[in-house]
Amino acid sequence: MSGLVIWFTGLSGAGKSTIADLVGAELERDGRLVEYLDGDVVRTHLSKGLGFSKEDRDTNIERIGWVASRLARHGATVLVSAISPYAEGRARARAWTEEHGAQFVEVHVATSVDECARRDAKGLYAKAFAGELPEFTGVSDPYEEPDSPEVRVDTEGRTPVECAREVLDRLAVQV
Amino acid sequence: MSGLVIWFTGLSGAGKSTIADLVGAELERDGRLVEYLDGDVVRTHLSKGLGFSKEDRDTNIERIGWVASRLARHGATVLVSAISPYAEGRARARAWTEEHGAQFVEVHVATSVDECARRDAKGLYAKAFAGELPEFTGVSDPYEEPDSPEVRVDTEGRTPVECAREVLDRLAVQV
Repeated sequence: MSGLVIWFTGLSGAGKSTIADLVGAELERDGRLVEYLDGDVVRTHLSKGLGFSKEDRDTNIERIGWVASRLARHGATVLVSAISPYAEGRARARAWTEEHGAQFVEVHVATSVDECARRDAKGLYAKAFAGELPEFTGVSDPYEEPDSPEVRVDTEGRTPVECAREVLDRLAVQV
Repeated sequence: MSGLVIWFTGLSGAGKSTIADLVGAELERDGRLVEYLDGDVVRTHLSKGLGFSKEDRDTNIERIGWVASRLARHGATVLVSAISPYAEGRARARAWTEEHGAQFVEVHVATSVDECARRDAKGLYAKAFAGELPEFTGVSDPYEEPDSPEVRVDTEGRTPVECAREVLDRLAVQV
């Protein structure tokens, strides 16, 4: 099976991992062997020692992109969920993936700052707006929206299952 | 093709990468898709930000082991060349690899400190013996020799090609 990287980008709490997990479960039912590079996995296995400076964020995204592209080289389906705030890092991941003949699908989970702040499951937005988190993406740190992602998911007023369905429908056309 | 991790461990300058490159070239001729996780690749893509403390070395080896095992899950042949001085880190890499039904072959490139110091292509041993490198494996930092590696290569008085041949012959029996 040819390699595929589905790269979910968006703000903290946008719903990236939730949607990616649902998409991955469906792709596994289709017989794909799926790797999940989400926040938990990355923090445990790839990013220990890195912080939130621009340089460290770039290193983190470069590292995830490199690992994803190498996995895709061997036919893996890789689901990345990472804020990945800078377009340059996402473009590099795409270039490395396509270099190996694998496909790269960028999914912008386009939940707005206001909606993320309303949900705020971890209370991080409240802290960021209070000035307690000086490098918080979307509030006190930049997020560069993708110009032309393969898929742009509006999550507001929709269930995660509906959002995952939209991604899968677009994939069916593109993969 | 089922996954395979060949893990070369040994001192700095022992000949790990040189032998691994020769082994890899032969495995590529056999049709295997090979990943090389050697010092250059690891420094560039995986270990930026880590130093030489016990904790950072453990993190580095754990990270390489995790990436190697995930690649092997997808059928990759992964050649790791890393000093990997601690038995625990190597054992974890083995456990993760075998967990995915892939095979793990530990190759101890058993060049002695004296011989490495005699070659000393980078002048590092001279500095270490002069006390200028406080965390240099084999001189001022520990190296735990593997108790029962699948292959133990004595490089002294032998060419890299002869050493690679020995590894390949042992692999032919075991893989």
